[in-house]
Amino acid sequence: MFKRLVSVDEARKILEQNFAPKPVGTEDVLLSDAYNRVLATDVISPLDIPPFNRSTVDGYAVNADDTFGAEEARPVSLRLTGQVRVGESPRLRVKKGTAAEIVTGAPIPEGADSVVMIEYTERKENTILVRQSVALSENVMKAGSDIRKGETILKKPTLLGPYEIGVLSAIGLARVSVYKRPRVAVFSTGAEVVELGKPLKGGKIFDINSHALSAAIAECGGQPISMGIVQDEKDMMTRALRKALFDADVVITSGGVSVGPTDIIPKVLDTLGKPGVIVYGMAIKPGKPTTIALVKDKPVFSLPGHPASALLIFHLFVRPILIRMTGKRPEPPLTVKAMTSTRFFSARGRRTYVTVALNRGKEGNIIASPVPVGLSGAITTMMKAHGFATVHESQQFIEKDQVVEVEIFRPDIYHLLMSRGNNL
Amino acid sequence: MFKRLVSVDEARKILEQNFAPKPVGTEDVLLSDAYNRVLATDVISPLDIPPFNRSTVDGYAVNADDTFGAEEARPVSLRLTGQVRVGESPRLRVKKGTAAEIVTGAPIPEGADSVVMIEYTERKENTILVRQSVALSENVMKAGSDIRKGETILKKPTLLGPYEIGVLSAIGLARVSVYKRPRVAVFSTGAEVVELGKPLKGGKIFDINSHALSAAIAECGGQPISMGIVQDEKDMMTRALRKALFDADVVITSGGVSVGPTDIIPKVLDTLGKPGVIVYGMAIKPGKPTTIALVKDKPVFSLPGHPASALLIFHLFVRPILIRMTGKRPEPPLTVKAMTSTRFFSARGRRTYVTVALNRGKEGNIIASPVPVGLSGAITTMMKAHGFATVHESQQFIEKDQVVEVEIFRPDIYHLLMSRGNNL
Repeated sequence: MFKRLVSVDEARKILEQNFAPKPVGTEDVLLSDAYNRVLATDVISPLDIPPFNRSTVDGYAVNADDTFGAEEARPVSLRLTGQVRVGESPRLRVKKGTAAEIVTGAPIPEGADSVVMIEYTERKENTILVRQSVALSENVMKAGSDIRKGETILKKPTLLGPYEIGVLSAIGLARVSVYKRPRVAVFSTGAEVVELGKPLKGGKIFDINSHALSAAIAECGGQPISMGIVQDEKDMMTRALRKALFDADVVITSGGVSVGPTDIIPKVLDTLGKPGVIVYGMAIKPGKPTTIALVKDKPVFSLPGHPASALLIFHLFVRPILIRMTGKRPEPPLTVKAMTSTRFFSARGRRTYVTVALNRGKEGNIIASPVPVGLSGAITTMMKAHGFATVHESQQFIEKDQVVEVEIFRPDIYHLLMSRGNNL
Repeated sequence: MFKRLVSVDEARKILEQNFAPKPVGTEDVLLSDAYNRVLATDVISPLDIPPFNRSTVDGYAVNADDTFGAEEARPVSLRLTGQVRVGESPRLRVKKGTAAEIVTGAPIPEGADSVVMIEYTERKENTILVRQSVALSENVMKAGSDIRKGETILKKPTLLGPYEIGVLSAIGLARVSVYKRPRVAVFSTGAEVVELGKPLKGGKIFDINSHALSAAIAECGGQPISMGIVQDEKDMMTRALRKALFDADVVITSGGVSVGPTDIIPKVLDTLGKPGVIVYGMAIKPGKPTTIALVKDKPVFSLPGHPASALLIFHLFVRPILIRMTGKRPEPPLTVKAMTSTRFFSARGRRTYVTVALNRGKEGNIIASPVPVGLSGAITTMMKAHGFATVHESQQFIEKDQVVEVEIFRPDIYHLLMSRGNNL
């Protein structure tokens, strides 16, 4: 067991050295279920798109040669041989001197090489007057000109949005291979914690963390597995952690950690498999008691009991891991430059994350005001925080009216701020 | 039936006058299913949070008076009366001159009014030496100081993220009332369109639009109902539209509209209920054949058959309606200023949406290059488009190297661009 608080940077390094986050497997899903999933294979087209030479306009399929010299005053006369319908293989053949009626999207019939738009024609019974010449292949989209058979149309790990799903539909793919969503077991610990909907007896509080963390897991693209509340007792904790490690790819506990002798979770974690606990307390504020373990290559994060601290540590340490396990490319953090409304203090020797609310100042710049979420255990204040500023270990404080970089953990706030610009 | 193309602004106005988008109802869901849903009621707390006066530190519950004058060199001596455990109603009483051992989160026992931190104490058997005085209520979080019983903690229509779900957990809410997701029926039309996974005969293409649009509906928070492919024939179309209007709150068709005499969909829509077709063709590029109807207060959008055009019209006309039907507050569009890579042409008299790819220029600014998605019917190009610039009806073109506002329809691209700054 480690006895020393490690710095945030050391903790990140230790985690990185011990665990390489990657997707836990792939699964085939219906294309209708593939929205927002991550493609797990390169997709090669089994056919040409379009599959045939198709008309891009309504008009007449012709030989371009036949229209040579056609003008408004001197139309070329062609004999109508028939009609090409959309969705059907044309049976007719367009010989020299003839034309076939055609609509947008219909296949170009044999013998024709271009289409003259209906606007430049006049029909007189079975004769078509063409009043403008067309070039070879004009108004024709050639088979395979969009996608060639054998062409790689999408590469892993593409996140599948409406456009990508459109392209996969184009080649007729009914099912698609995507990365499995990492399963993340979550439980809360503590003798005071009670499940939602149960009566609240003296000294008890409702379980907040397993619900808030489950939502945060879903936000990353993970699949939360709620394991409820586990008492901070050795045998129960051992059983709960064993089950969690069996059912899930990542385990998150919260509460029941405070770097000290009554700590059950780190002790149990060390008995379950190698390497066991790799980070036992961090020089960070908030979140000092955070413990990280690896058991048989599955990471276990023991977060503090305070909800705002637990969510912050989740954001800093768990989220980047989960994003990589979903197969998604790492996301750039959402940051804005903001001006400090007051002096931001740090905890001596610990990297301090000052949670802040962002507001628009008089000059159009963004003001960051600390929202105290740490000590008091308050829940409501954390809803008012939009992100955090970082005070580094070597800094005593950040002065009032300084420009700082704020990392935003609420995408909706980010959009709102950016849509109105930032003068800083 | 309308005979005239209306402008984009007129179409928006007509739609607004005929249809006021609002949520279609509410439903109670488990809090574990409430992530990313929209709260449909104001939530009033049925209890104080914290529910009792709680200690915010590990130490000893005392009377502040008893510690008056305590210093390092002159500690005050108090008799230990017992221990308060977390999660239990304390049975003991802290009389004058006594102290009770307490941990973070445990209830303050009767008689005590503050907590002295363990760091400032020394225990000698049943005597506690206090080496620093505490103020009244120091290290105590009072019952109801975070949330008072009867207080409104969240208002409709709040989007429920991890923080909001944390707060709802705090008051023990196991189920929550959220707005129903609007159901959106989608089908594609056209004799050439074939379902995914089926064999592709001559002249046929796979159904792209119902899949791409379903993903776009999900992205808005709607619930897509896929109705497959419907042939462009009066009786079949009547049955399909009737069923769609019965099953869903909004109906989207694509393909089978081209302002002209063979148009089945607008004719059928006019027979199904009042007011019927309200927009029949728009002075827009792409998307001219777009038709909008209202049948018994349900909107029907008939989008063009070309996938990129259908998705663009969805973004411009359907998405804002769906967002409001989910109960969410209207979103500000994601826009960036970018420099045109070339002259952007417009279609005469029609508002032109030029789909563009965004790239970083040499000076760090963002360059917008047109991605031609319109005429050719190409599918792959639309994946390369990140957003669109608008050329207004009165403009002939936008010159090369002009700064234009680009509306982005891919949030991932927006984050990527913004995270690297924009010099324009």
